[in-house]
Amino acid sequence: MNTSSEHTSETGRFITFEGGEGAGKSTQVKALVARLRAQGLEVVQTREPGGSPGAEALRDLLVQGDATRWSAVSELLMMYAARADHLEKVIRPALARGAWVICDRFADSSRAYQGAGGGVAPAFIEQVDQVVVGRTQPDLVLVMDMPVEVGLKRAYDRGDIENRFESKGAAFHERLRAGFIARAAAHPERYRLIDADQPIEPITAEIWSMVLSAFPVLRGA
Amino acid sequence: MNTSSEHTSETGRFITFEGGEGAGKSTQVKALVARLRAQGLEVVQTREPGGSPGAEALRDLLVQGDATRWSAVSELLMMYAARADHLEKVIRPALARGAWVICDRFADSSRAYQGAGGGVAPAFIEQVDQVVVGRTQPDLVLVMDMPVEVGLKRAYDRGDIENRFESKGAAFHERLRAGFIARAAAHPERYRLIDADQPIEPITAEIWSMVLSAFPVLRGA
Repeated sequence: MNTSSEHTSETGRFITFEGGEGAGKSTQVKALVARLRAQGLEVVQTREPGGSPGAEALRDLLVQGDATRWSAVSELLMMYAARADHLEKVIRPALARGAWVICDRFADSSRAYQGAGGGVAPAFIEQVDQVVVGRTQPDLVLVMDMPVEVGLKRAYDRGDIENRFESKGAAFHERLRAGFIARAAAHPERYRLIDADQPIEPITAEIWSMVLSAFPVLRGA
Repeated sequence: MNTSSEHTSETGRFITFEGGEGAGKSTQVKALVARLRAQGLEVVQTREPGGSPGAEALRDLLVQGDATRWSAVSELLMMYAARADHLEKVIRPALARGAWVICDRFADSSRAYQGAGGGVAPAFIEQVDQVVVGRTQPDLVLVMDMPVEVGLKRAYDRGDIENRFESKGAAFHERLRAGFIARAAAHPERYRLIDADQPIEPITAEIWSMVLSAFPVLRGA
């Protein structure tokens, strides 16, 4: 089994979805998971913050309360504490047995929310990322991009929002969007920027095309 | 008001107590706080993990469950997330208004428990410490030292123990003790090692003598 991935044939593939509020990540995660399962693959669908019992308990602390409950540095450290648990208990065991892991948000959300949005120094985030994530970097990062006002309106209309991050104001969300775009541009080999201000179906088709292109093993399956 | 401290005269003093389980830190914290208050000083008595509402919520997550619930890296990041909150909400405001802050455990417990005991790389702990604690290093660190078996027996007999750390086994606690001793030896200007395997009163007297020596302002008060 030859693939373009850096993993050996015994390991799974790790794909993350990133982007601002209301960008439609959850819908596209579900669609991709269904498509991969239809190929007969084992797929683990997960999310951050959370994804393991310890990490979900930290998520509860993070999303409760008002927008200023935690400083950006505290948020960053809690996010990476949760991520370490999620990696250890869920992601690495799944990849080791050859499963595909599809994760709704991962480390790039920390770079965007606590870094670009919250002002934590990028160099410090990379120091923490190196210790916690290390070599378990995603094989493919799908960044769902749309204008901030469109995404926030969608999130509010949806009504099931966890408010701490969505109540931080438009300027915060503009920095966040710019952070995601800059990150994708800096790592074109692993990142794909997707215009998420479209109907669901063409986005689903575009993502599947990107996945097929990134993982030739799928075309041979 | 001239003192030997690096702080200016407008700021308070920051003293931490460190050491293994059952070393009698809480008793000595109370005694020192009472003695300083008898001098007419404003004293803030606090503790870690915890000390602010957000940090106490993290403490609850940390001390619950069995000894392997969290990896040492997750623990370290949660401890420093809590510490950032404690510093921001309690310690720095108190020091800024000139209060004395007496804290039962602080960053050296992270160095001992997650570093020396848990195996997190010391260089990484210092990177995190620099961002979170920065210049708010304690003026004086009182390390309560005693043989591991004596301390653990005291903690078990006391019966009010929070078990996650105390159930990690004797080898863990020996590494922890060695870590505290090495830290104190490396920074003799700010650290004092105290033989805690003595009756309470001589320890209280020794600590007060150390505090008077470290802060000449107290002798002039």
